[in-house]
Amino acid sequence: MAEAPARARRADVCVVGAGLAGLTAARRLSAAGVKAVVLEARDRVGGRTYSVESGGLHLDLGGQWIGPTQDRMAKLVADLGIETFPTHHAGRKVLFTGDRRSTYTGDIPSMAPHRLVLLQATISRIERLCRRVGAGPEPWTRPDAARWDGETLESWARRNIPSRPVRGVMDVAVRTVFGAEAGELSLLYALSYLAAGGGLMRVVNIHDGAQERRFTRGAQSVAVALAAGLGPRVILNAPVRAIDHGGSRVRVRTDAGDFSASRVVVAVPPVMAGRLDYAPALPAPRDELTQRFPMGATIKLHALYDRAFWRDEGYSGEALFTGGPVAVVFDNSSPDGARGALLAFSVGAAARRLGAMTAEARRRTVLDQLVRSFGPRAAEPVAFLEKDWSADPWTRGCPTGILPPGVLSVFGPALRPPVGPIHWAGTETATEWTGYMDGAVQSGERAADEVLAALGSAG
Amino acid sequence: MAEAPARARRADVCVVGAGLAGLTAARRLSAAGVKAVVLEARDRVGGRTYSVESGGLHLDLGGQWIGPTQDRMAKLVADLGIETFPTHHAGRKVLFTGDRRSTYTGDIPSMAPHRLVLLQATISRIERLCRRVGAGPEPWTRPDAARWDGETLESWARRNIPSRPVRGVMDVAVRTVFGAEAGELSLLYALSYLAAGGGLMRVVNIHDGAQERRFTRGAQSVAVALAAGLGPRVILNAPVRAIDHGGSRVRVRTDAGDFSASRVVVAVPPVMAGRLDYAPALPAPRDELTQRFPMGATIKLHALYDRAFWRDEGYSGEALFTGGPVAVVFDNSSPDGARGALLAFSVGAAARRLGAMTAEARRRTVLDQLVRSFGPRAAEPVAFLEKDWSADPWTRGCPTGILPPGVLSVFGPALRPPVGPIHWAGTETATEWTGYMDGAVQSGERAADEVLAALGSAG
Repeated sequence: MAEAPARARRADVCVVGAGLAGLTAARRLSAAGVKAVVLEARDRVGGRTYSVESGGLHLDLGGQWIGPTQDRMAKLVADLGIETFPTHHAGRKVLFTGDRRSTYTGDIPSMAPHRLVLLQATISRIERLCRRVGAGPEPWTRPDAARWDGETLESWARRNIPSRPVRGVMDVAVRTVFGAEAGELSLLYALSYLAAGGGLMRVVNIHDGAQERRFTRGAQSVAVALAAGLGPRVILNAPVRAIDHGGSRVRVRTDAGDFSASRVVVAVPPVMAGRLDYAPALPAPRDELTQRFPMGATIKLHALYDRAFWRDEGYSGEALFTGGPVAVVFDNSSPDGARGALLAFSVGAAARRLGAMTAEARRRTVLDQLVRSFGPRAAEPVAFLEKDWSADPWTRGCPTGILPPGVLSVFGPALRPPVGPIHWAGTETATEWTGYMDGAVQSGERAADEVLAALGSAG
Repeated sequence: MAEAPARARRADVCVVGAGLAGLTAARRLSAAGVKAVVLEARDRVGGRTYSVESGGLHLDLGGQWIGPTQDRMAKLVADLGIETFPTHHAGRKVLFTGDRRSTYTGDIPSMAPHRLVLLQATISRIERLCRRVGAGPEPWTRPDAARWDGETLESWARRNIPSRPVRGVMDVAVRTVFGAEAGELSLLYALSYLAAGGGLMRVVNIHDGAQERRFTRGAQSVAVALAAGLGPRVILNAPVRAIDHGGSRVRVRTDAGDFSASRVVVAVPPVMAGRLDYAPALPAPRDELTQRFPMGATIKLHALYDRAFWRDEGYSGEALFTGGPVAVVFDNSSPDGARGALLAFSVGAAARRLGAMTAEARRRTVLDQLVRSFGPRAAEPVAFLEKDWSADPWTRGCPTGILPPGVLSVFGPALRPPVGPIHWAGTETATEWTGYMDGAVQSGERAADEVLAALGSAG
């Protein structure tokens, strides 16, 4: 009882997903004179970047930072004339080890001297391992790949970090970077991911790190500007359901009608790509990879205040909790500091506990952690905003797809190669700054280049 | 541009998937006077049981054994009047440790005495751990759950089995049971799974184990008989694409039209359940679980011979390879032994290597392993049949869904609870013989009981 095929709108290329990867691909294709249509499930562009305005503040409910060596994003931002400003980080930081509160300055949390030595040694060791894995396209070819991929980052840490408090601090860093527990992550994958960002400290730091600068009007402004350049070729409210790629042209079925194209760029996270209906079905290794590539779990919660009161008392606004449910807090105030905002990340297993609460209990729980960090004034925000990315049906997690053990070394080779006319983009397919906006841009450019080469050789 | 809703066929309950779980649920519902329609994507019933006839032999390309304590299957098989017979296992078995060939009798492979002691100690240790985890519905509540779920079975084995050959033998057992490498599996999940089957030796053995008996006309005959009892209520070629459960009745969208029901039982593996389109979207923890529940990788390959020639030379037909690409071989001859068949399993990472070969290279590779095991007569089968379950678009792997570290302890509680009118069945949701036909039956009965209770309280 198949329906009579409705007329399909035609394009040279259909791009699935109007996040940074998809929009970058479409922009590059358009610049080469190729008609690319971007099909977006949501009523907005930007994917995992999503900015809102509240009380004059531009707040990012999704990805929000740009840092050194993220050269593709830097160029894109410069091209589009988008303004950034330094992330606030002057002042003392707060560390909770369980219920024990302490404060510190600099990049390394306060600890007893012998633990500090171990923490520094652990960081150096991870940086060395990152250099051994190396950034690059094929971590599965490293001599130790199978061994590193056979265990979790947690079992490695249990063996190599003989101090619970030091492991606790490392765990907070890991959780926040991946939205996942060390026990969910392949050691090989974790090292490759950190290496792709230039190493552990580059990834976790504000100063000279991945959190160095913010976007004056929110990170989504990049996607909005890209979409403006593409105009009507970006089609919102058009969830792609199926890709029929057995004929001479590909038919892409969406809730807003069918599209016909020579090539398709799928620019959504691997798990979401795996949930589309493909006819013919995808080859086993590609499908198996998407079965094994879940999203990290991240809830971003913002408490807004009339002023950044913590700065008056010498705090930077940063806090770090080994216990949770919030793992880390950052100052997300306006560029001039006039309007205050604290950004709390709940990530990994704790995000599931927090996500299961009522909105009111969640707010109370988070504000309690902020009060313990910065005093009673934190208890009365003028507004409270939250976004649980795991509950978002079009992304189902943040910041990125994560790999458990046994996947990268076996199924990694299926990550990027096109399947017939279907090309794969998205930050998870990037070889530098995987999981970051910069990786999304790299992946979109790479997929566009693949398509252009294929169209060129076909023409 | 939504289409005008076509008329939906009505039922009390829609069951998604005509495997053993779905058919068992429908049978129980029908027996209680509830109209259940079973919607099956394929042109056949049986799911992961799939039997073919070749040269007078009934061969199982999918699940094929029944053993002691699988009481639900035993009762079902007796009710349906289905015949079984003992699996052939008399004779010497072959073990390849790398290229080194040896033979043995009994359940424990031949090894140097000090290794045999370690192997026996390892088995005892795993049996003890299985008893500590215990069979039961909630392994995530065990005191050590988080610790056991934070590492792979491989990292546990590296620490606890200080002999590569012994680890090699254990790895073959693990691979064959799960269709996965020890490095892919959560220690907690692996122990729970083995415990649900009564322990390691119960699960891996023929005599007094899960491989004890075969089905005279193939294991699919059970599903065929169940479907015959349901008649036209089983609808083939009806892949379910979407479940709209926001209204007073659920609308189930299939390629064979829409269905309307009060309740739905989704009886497909978790990863496949996660790929349906739900409106409203499923809650985060349930979705996250299905993101993290990939299928094991299993290719079953049969070489058919005029007679079971290996028996003449005192071989049982069983062989075990620590190297691969075939992991284990069984005698799958006709009940009277007149027509010979060797069944080769390629599983886990090796299945991906074998699956990537041409059919001819795959045949050559497998026959070479059979020749090295049982002599040159194995080189000339009268027929050669294979099925790569990872390439099957409606199952995407076998024998079962597997859990990497960090999933069961965090997302396990989302495995069985219904979401509104949607109930979850399938062997992965079973608490006894998870992953086996018996578990499928338990899950179907449990889901049917949930539905009956819900319909009863609603009526």
